[in-house]
Amino acid sequence: MRIALLGAGTVGGGVIEIVDSRAPSLEVARILTLPGTYDDPRVTYDFADIVSDDSIECVVEAMGGLEPAHTFIMESLAAGKHVVTANKAVVAAFLPEFCAQAEESGVGFFIEATSGGGIPWIASIEKARRIDRIDRISGILNGTSNYIVDRMAKDGAEFTDVLAQAQALGYAEADPSADIDGIDVANKCIISSTVAFGTLCRRDIPVHGIRNLTKADLDTFAGLGYAVRLMARAARDDDGYAACVEPVLLPLASVEGNVPDNFNIATLVGTTVGPLKFYGQGAGALPTGNAMVQDLVDCAGGERPVYPTGETLSWKPGLLRADYVFRTAAALPADTPGTAVEVAPGYVSVGGLSATEAAALADALLAEDPATLMAAVADVD
Amino acid sequence: MRIALLGAGTVGGGVIEIVDSRAPSLEVARILTLPGTYDDPRVTYDFADIVSDDSIECVVEAMGGLEPAHTFIMESLAAGKHVVTANKAVVAAFLPEFCAQAEESGVGFFIEATSGGGIPWIASIEKARRIDRIDRISGILNGTSNYIVDRMAKDGAEFTDVLAQAQALGYAEADPSADIDGIDVANKCIISSTVAFGTLCRRDIPVHGIRNLTKADLDTFAGLGYAVRLMARAARDDDGYAACVEPVLLPLASVEGNVPDNFNIATLVGTTVGPLKFYGQGAGALPTGNAMVQDLVDCAGGERPVYPTGETLSWKPGLLRADYVFRTAAALPADTPGTAVEVAPGYVSVGGLSATEAAALADALLAEDPATLMAAVADVD
Repeated sequence: MRIALLGAGTVGGGVIEIVDSRAPSLEVARILTLPGTYDDPRVTYDFADIVSDDSIECVVEAMGGLEPAHTFIMESLAAGKHVVTANKAVVAAFLPEFCAQAEESGVGFFIEATSGGGIPWIASIEKARRIDRIDRISGILNGTSNYIVDRMAKDGAEFTDVLAQAQALGYAEADPSADIDGIDVANKCIISSTVAFGTLCRRDIPVHGIRNLTKADLDTFAGLGYAVRLMARAARDDDGYAACVEPVLLPLASVEGNVPDNFNIATLVGTTVGPLKFYGQGAGALPTGNAMVQDLVDCAGGERPVYPTGETLSWKPGLLRADYVFRTAAALPADTPGTAVEVAPGYVSVGGLSATEAAALADALLAEDPATLMAAVADVD
Repeated sequence: MRIALLGAGTVGGGVIEIVDSRAPSLEVARILTLPGTYDDPRVTYDFADIVSDDSIECVVEAMGGLEPAHTFIMESLAAGKHVVTANKAVVAAFLPEFCAQAEESGVGFFIEATSGGGIPWIASIEKARRIDRIDRISGILNGTSNYIVDRMAKDGAEFTDVLAQAQALGYAEADPSADIDGIDVANKCIISSTVAFGTLCRRDIPVHGIRNLTKADLDTFAGLGYAVRLMARAARDDDGYAACVEPVLLPLASVEGNVPDNFNIATLVGTTVGPLKFYGQGAGALPTGNAMVQDLVDCAGGERPVYPTGETLSWKPGLLRADYVFRTAAALPADTPGTAVEVAPGYVSVGGLSATEAAALADALLAEDPATLMAAVADVD
């Protein structure tokens, strides 16, 4: 199968390396890049060269960002080409539009690499759904934030120092907000929830990051028996669903609380199979490239994934309820729901909040004390 | 697709429940049981009723044991019926014979449920191999032994007390030796290694169980920073492979060292994807039934798995090398390889043994002191 690659950065480079060395039935025929970035006879700077080339059966989008990725994906699908993408932002924003165009054109649209890097996560959700209803999903879905929290805990280091180290290693971007504020995880959570629950997950789920986490916080939580991880969680029942992204306090002696370095882990809970967890490299040239080449092999074998969104589930924030710990110099508003208890000097636990209520409370406290920290004491399967 | 079920015990009952409630395209048409064990109009006591029934397309073997399972599988395949099995003992013993007959008859032979219960482990190995060479696998593949070790550590209980509790809960058999002596894990390790490495794994791999593990051992190891788990490990290089089953000392702050209750976890390491871990219920009616129904859905969809064994890899015990800790009243033989160091009162570490050398040393020590304990300080991916 002849493919064209949009973008030859980290992930695109991984795709080229794996296809050239390990997938003899595939051929990277064209590569779209910006002028001066990649020296290869297959390079073009003009997307029209690709979309008008009838010998190209599949377009692999590894550019990132909303535009021109959105336009190029739509034009590729409309031209009757399969599309494989690793772009979580564009898929979280436009999944129904992409699926409708793929169906109309009779081609495949593949999204394994958007969530969990090399972990076969989307395919595993789809497989589980053949038999089971999936009632809950959760996961550590951002390697950069996991690396930061894990190194802070193991080295006794401060957030800013580890962030600088992660940036030097190439684990974190110069502008790290997508990773540390939960935006990247939110996109993956929206995609995963949509595939798992069969309903289109809303885009404005409650999202709270780890920017304000300190070494002293980790020490305090360890004293209470907890590790911290930035996690996505989502749940459904017969007629509703909820999803969120937030720091979660996990028992020190738990699987998630011991996920090291920049690894990811994702969990689904199915009716008959129970909890299944999937662990691996959530980013990087070769792991994410591997996920894209797995999609390409499926595509060449005739698979045409379908992500049904026909279930009508309403937004039901009460499905995600937990106790939340706040470290803040601000006073709790008088109308704070639940009961507040001091669990350590300077740390107050508010019982039984929904993730939506907790995020709203955190926003109110942050307006008064910008260093406020929030974390959920959530049950993770 | 009309199927016949051989055996209506725990796993067979799970298959019936899942097919009847969640898989409308499948029909359990006949059920082979012993007289008096299961009351259902579909029951027969005579395998000839099934093998001669041309309307039965697939036979689901959930009897366990070598015979008559081996004969019934071979006759089903020879009669042109697909076979789905959960029977690790018969697959570890006869996989090449089954595969040859399936190929000759042009039918499918499915083994997902033999290893890791509800975890999509065999399918994940096969998928990873489409692109990567798999260099190592490892795993906690026996729920009973994991339950025993986890409860011993968490409750400060002795082996025999937790074993009795596991037997009362139905997690352990009246004769627990297959679980606690590593025999069950060895069968799963042989099957997994064969599928992962593409070579037929020998049947007499070194196997050592947890029968002699005491509460005092767990306390000592915890003091050294280690948890204990019964694990399978296997590795290959360009021309050789090795595999073993033994107790392994894992860092207290590791994923494997925190796998709770009767859960399983299995790891593969691929060339480009790196380490991938898969976690879930390794046994039980619904999880194992789920794995069999997943195989049935694949079978009905036309999939015909192939487990190639064409790679000629020689047995190379040196590929699995580690330090081993022994607690024994026996004296180490004068010809013990490696260097011995006391790591705690009564516990000696012998450096750099292959798993084969360690098992031989353990056997020699056990002949003198039947309470001898052995555990590997092995790197787990």
